[in-house]
Order: sequence, then C-alpha cells, then structure tokens
Amino acid sequence: MSTSPAALAPSDSEAPAALVERLARAGRTAQRAVARLSDAAKADALRAAAAALRVDAPKILAANARDVAAGEANGLTGAMLDRLRLNPDRLESIAAAVDQVAALPDPVGAVIDTATRPNGLVLSRVRVPIGLIGIIYESRPNVTADAAALCLRSGNAVLLRGGTEAVHSNRAIHAALVQGLCSAGVPAEAVQLMPTQDRAAVGAMLTAAGLIDMIVPRGGKSLVARVQADARVPVLAHLDGICHTFIHAAADPAMAQAIALNAKLRRTGICGAMETLLLDATFPASGAVLGALLDSGCELRGDARACALDSRILPATANDWDTEYLEAILSVAVVDGLDAALAHIAAHSSAHTDAIVTADPDAAERFLAEVDSAIVMVNASTQFADGGEFGLGAEIGIATGRLHARGPVALEGLTTYKWQVRGSGQVRP
Amino acid sequence: MSTSPAALAPSDSEAPAALVERLARAGRTAQRAVARLSDAAKADALRAAAAALRVDAPKILAANARDVAAGEANGLTGAMLDRLRLNPDRLESIAAAVDQVAALPDPVGAVIDTATRPNGLVLSRVRVPIGLIGIIYESRPNVTADAAALCLRSGNAVLLRGGTEAVHSNRAIHAALVQGLCSAGVPAEAVQLMPTQDRAAVGAMLTAAGLIDMIVPRGGKSLVARVQADARVPVLAHLDGICHTFIHAAADPAMAQAIALNAKLRRTGICGAMETLLLDATFPASGAVLGALLDSGCELRGDARACALDSRILPATANDWDTEYLEAILSVAVVDGLDAALAHIAAHSSAHTDAIVTADPDAAERFLAEVDSAIVMVNASTQFADGGEFGLGAEIGIATGRLHARGPVALEGLTTYKWQVRGSGQVRP
Repeated sequence: MSTSPAALAPSDSEAPAALVERLARAGRTAQRAVARLSDAAKADALRAAAAALRVDAPKILAANARDVAAGEANGLTGAMLDRLRLNPDRLESIAAAVDQVAALPDPVGAVIDTATRPNGLVLSRVRVPIGLIGIIYESRPNVTADAAALCLRSGNAVLLRGGTEAVHSNRAIHAALVQGLCSAGVPAEAVQLMPTQDRAAVGAMLTAAGLIDMIVPRGGKSLVARVQADARVPVLAHLDGICHTFIHAAADPAMAQAIALNAKLRRTGICGAMETLLLDATFPASGAVLGALLDSGCELRGDARACALDSRILPATANDWDTEYLEAILSVAVVDGLDAALAHIAAHSSAHTDAIVTADPDAAERFLAEVDSAIVMVNASTQFADGGEFGLGAEIGIATGRLHARGPVALEGLTTYKWQVRGSGQVRP
Repeated sequence: MSTSPAALAPSDSEAPAALVERLARAGRTAQRAVARLSDAAKADALRAAAAALRVDAPKILAANARDVAAGEANGLTGAMLDRLRLNPDRLESIAAAVDQVAALPDPVGAVIDTATRPNGLVLSRVRVPIGLIGIIYESRPNVTADAAALCLRSGNAVLLRGGTEAVHSNRAIHAALVQGLCSAGVPAEAVQLMPTQDRAAVGAMLTAAGLIDMIVPRGGKSLVARVQADARVPVLAHLDGICHTFIHAAADPAMAQAIALNAKLRRTGICGAMETLLLDATFPASGAVLGALLDSGCELRGDARACALDSRILPATANDWDTEYLEAILSVAVVDGLDAALAHIAAHSSAHTDAIVTADPDAAERFLAEVDSAIVMVNASTQFADGGEFGLGAEIGIATGRLHARGPVALEGLTTYKWQVRGSGQVRP
C-alpha cells in the first residue's frame, strides 16, 4: 500500500487539477481502509508515527535548518521565523502531541441516539469519519503532525498543503509520519503531502468538490479569506476573532478587572483574545478596570464616555469596533445596560467568543441565550476559547460557521453520522 | 413589524443582489426576534397560520386555478399539473401538516452535552437555530407552507422562492401564513416570499454568503444540480437516490421477495426507491424474486448472470448501474458474496440509502459499518427513507452531504449549536 516519493511526484505535464484528483482518489481509497481499523490499531499507528518522529529528529532538524536559512535570506519577519523554527524541545512537543491524540477516545462508532419505530424498525445515528480532509497551512511545521494525527484518529485521510517557507521541514516530518504509520499497517496514502508548492494546486484543492470532503485552513486572515472565497468544498474555519467582554452593572469589580486583564493581555495574538470591552454605564469600577489595563501597557481607544473616564484613552474611530488588533490595543465603549451591550455585540461580533461578567444570574442567562456566537461565556476570560482548555485534548481549529461543528473542533468535529436501520422484514405500506 | 406587499416589491431599478440583500437583512432581523420566542409562542403562531390557511381556502384555490389554467395553456405535462393542482382536500392536508409541525417538540435550547472542567468552568453545547434559510423549489405549492412551518418551528427565518408555474398559489398561501403568524406576534419578515420570478434573483440567493445561512433546494435533479454548482452558501440536499438492495446468501427468500417488490414498486418516483438489486450468487431463490418483479410489470436490466436467470431480462449497459430510473425499471447484478456487493455499492451508490437482506448478523453488521451512505438498512425496504417514517414528524429534505445533517432532515437538522461556558471568575494561566 505504500507509495514511494517518486510515485507521488507530479510529472511535468500533470495539470494541478489532475494531480489533486489523483492524490484525492488515492486518499479516498486509503480512507476506506482506515475506517475499518479498530480503535487500538489507529492508536498504535499514531504511537508508531510519534516514535518515528523521534528517530528522525536529526533529519527533521537539518531540514528545518535549511528552511530557516532560506527564510532569513528571503527576509522573513522575526515572528514568521519563530513560527518556522524547530529545536529538540519543540520537536519533542510535536511527537508528544501525536502520542496525546493516540490516547484520546475514538469518536467513530459512537451512537448519537437510537429509537425503535412502532413497526419494529430500530434506528441509530452513528458517528462515521468525514472522509478526505484537506489542510492548507502556512509556516508552522507542527501543523503537519497535529493535523495528520487528528484526522487519522477520527478515521479520516488527509491531504496536507503546507507553506513554501517550511517545505523541507514538512517533507521530513511527513516522511517520518508515513514510515511510522506504514509500519503499523496504515496505508501511506492516508496521510499525503502535496508534492508541489505550485499555488494552482491549492486552487485545485479548493474546487475539488466530491473528491475532498472538507477543507481546514490554518493560518492568517488572508489565507482564510482566500480559502473561504474560492472553496467549492465545505470549509471549517473562522476569519476573525473580534471577541467582546461586557462588564455588567452587577459584576464583581475585582473579578471584572482580573478577567479583563487576562482576556486582553495574557496573549494578545490568539483568536480568543478580547478586542472590545463594553462597560455598563452604571458599573461603579470602570475607571479602575481601565486604569489597570493602561498601567499594564494596553492602548485603549474609547467612545466619548469611555474617554471621559481616563485622559490616557484615545478616541476610537468607527473602524475600531470591527478590528481584530491581535496586539495590546483594546476598543472600549460605555453602554446603557444589557440590551445595549447585546445590540453592540450583534452588530460587531465575529461570532467567535463573547463574554459577560456579572453576578446577576438573569443577566447571565439572557446573555448566554441571546448572543449568537460559537462560544458565549459568563464570568470567565475569553482566552479559554481553545480545544485543550475545553477538554477536547486537541483542536484542528475553531469554527464560526453555523452548520456542522462550531467552536473548538477536535475529533468529534471531524466526524459526521449515518442512520443505521435494523429491521425484521418491514415493507412500507 | 409587519411589511406591506408594496414594501416587499422590488423597485424597477433594484438589482437582484440588492433585492436579496434587503430581504435577507429583514429576515435576519426577524429571525433574532423569532429566536427569542418561547416554544409555546412558536406553536401558537403556527396554529394561527394553519387556521388562516383554512379561512383563506377560497382565495388560495382561486389563485391555484389561475396557475393551473396557465399551466394547461403553456403545455405543462400531466405530472407537473398534478403536482401544481390543489383542491379542498389537498389544502386541508397542507393546513393539517402545519398543525402537526406545531405539535412537534421544539429542538431549540436542547443541551447536547455538558461537562465541568477541573478549573470549575461548566461547558454546555446547546441547540440554536441556523438563522436565515433559503428554500428554492418548483411547482408544488405545499412546499410554501411545509418549509415555512419547519423553519419557524426550529427558530429560523425563511426566504422562499417558488416556481413560476405556482406563483399565484404561492402568493396566496404565503399571504395567509403571514396573516396568521402576525396575529400571533411573529414578525412578517420571518417568512418572506421572493417578490419577483426573475431568475437572476435565484443566483443572488445562491451567492448570498453571510446573508443566507443555508439553501435547501426542493425539486428535480436539474434544479438541485444547478444549486449545488452555483451556491456559495451551504446547501442541504441530495442529487440522486441510486439505492441498492443486496440479497445476501443467508436471506429469507420470502422476506427478500417482499422487500424487493416493495423497495422498487411501492412508489417508483421517490428518492428512496430501489434502483439496483444485487443478488448473491449463492442465494437460492433469485429466480423467484426476479420472476415476481417481472410479473409485477417491472422492466429488469441485468448483467450476464442475471440475464441467465430469466429470458425476459434485458441486458444492462454500463450506464444502468449509475441511473436513477424513478420508474418501474430496475438494474440487477449477480455478485459473489458480501465483499463484491460492498465494492459495487462503493462504486455506484449515491450515498442516499442502501439495504441488505440477510439472516446472518455478522453480514448485517459489516454492511451497516462499511456502506458509507446516509442511511444503511438491514431487512427493510429502502422506501422507509423518509422523515415521517423515521419518526421525525416531517422533513425539509434528505441530505447526502457529509457535514452537518445527513439522511432525513427535520427540526433538529435545522439547528446548530453553540458552546455555553459558565464560570466563576476563571482566568487562563
């Protein structure tokens, strides 16, 4: 079942669409074999893949050094180089993450619900893999291993297309993964890496409806926007994380301050970071909360009432309410109660994560019910928006679409279901 | 909150995209109001809509008579005229179906699962409406009421675009529905009918990503194919119902014959009708099953081994294995056991509904596990593939996509979920 690199390589004359079709058909065939594997067999294969990553560490680090050197020569930013760079500790973390996914429970085969009809038919909805999943990502080589592990653990095959700046790292990680998986009986085509960096091949993946079942983009907003605009295949993604925290009149002041500081400043570059703070006009400690944020080095951009609370606050422009800063900048508005906060969030939220801080259970329940985001929180930091923090063990991404999975998506989110019907000869009258 | 027909009508200069955006924004606003209604309020509103359909029966039947007369003048086929034609009994069935949907349990707010994290955060996944649903349909005016009822019962708003041949019927049914709903406090814009038959407006609906959350096409294969090809909005649909029944060696002969006859011939025009019969080469009663189908007036098209079983069987061509006949024609192949049947189904099934007849529980479980269709059945007629027969009370359609809902889709399939997080001040370390 294994495929040599030579067989995977595109011929000079092979058009991107033909290449994607060939890889996708091989992946779909492999997926049917993966779907028949037991829970234990999938877990064993992932542990073998993790072991192969450790054995191949010198090769992977050497390949990564080539990518980093090329990136430095090509003028990649420090942040991009940091995302690209591996070292023994980071590589061990990648292998350990594969082992952790191996240890998670298998979602495939779980019975969602079951019912018996008056005519004796027994109906069950049972989780099954989605099929062949395409992952399009940028410079982080850890995605190669993370995505492969999550897809395989949930019975799916995967077609990976990583960024050009990480091409050698990704090939070395992929080669190790496939060697480990094959040693445990998984077909090599269950985890394929696109053999060309031709951008047209990405377009061919996005339009491969019927061949690829779902696309997951992993990267910056421009990548996600392109994928969402061009894809004919369902996409699991979020574009923005414009997360709000509303401090209600009945919020505990100390809790409100601790949550606001953490939600904005713990890590400013993650999608669950707060980008807009809404302060109830009758909350008595707004000045203290804003002062603590300013004292911690956060730039505040406020509406007129917010600016009146501290002279260090800059005036916000209309764009600020729709901006995902991803740095130590926060927009701040003073609102007249829960209804005004809900209206602001309905107008400006990206439907990712929004939170209320309040000691009033009725206000909390209204917020939970009426804010229509993938994640709504009471009395907690929006920075908890994460598959690991939710106890999912891992995450393939966070989804803000309305169909299928929303919020942190891990193994269960990589499955769908079918109806199983068990009869005893029933014919329909 | 009500909108007069004059306000809905497009101005002469309004482009289709602008019209769809205006209607969709009104629908989205109405949907937020619907989402706040209680279970009882939604049920009351639907009962008021059913009552209004009964009160308006003379108007609706007169409008329908205009459509039928125009259809006759325009040379519609008898089958199309039959789908279009209403009479007092059919209209009462439409009203009764709305009452039945009112009586179904509300899926919104149901807790899918809940968990408490070690830090005390309480996570719940809760069902919420999808949002604004677009329905694109052909000549059956009952879809106007059915789709509106299902969408509203599940907390959604709907934008309906029916066929030109039913335009007067649809407008009369829609007017009655809206009158009833408004009398019970539902905003009129929760159920909107496209005010123009301009085909460009359908295209504008299909590309209204971010404005319409999901499209459901209801009609023939050409409509569904166009919607699937052009839509930028997620589509819930099936294109083909190429349903297989495999009669295993260990099938009870009498059960196999009864199921085969029912699956093919009970109603030949529905998507759950069997289109291919696979006979195990060692099943002893194949001749009797095929003879019963032929004696019942079914045309059989067989492979060489099937043709050898009865001289009345015509030779099948390669196309037959991928054809949804929707009439009394059946393709028949003799296969060497379960593996060959699984391979045939994997190659030719449309992933709608496939069945095995067998008394061997191991064969049944392998079939249930390995056939990757939305519905897989053991010892039952494929004609049971229907939301009503599955106990869902109704159905908006049958879905063969892999994400979100599969198989018969009713109220629960018209919802998604959000994560609700209840904390006590947790900040992320």
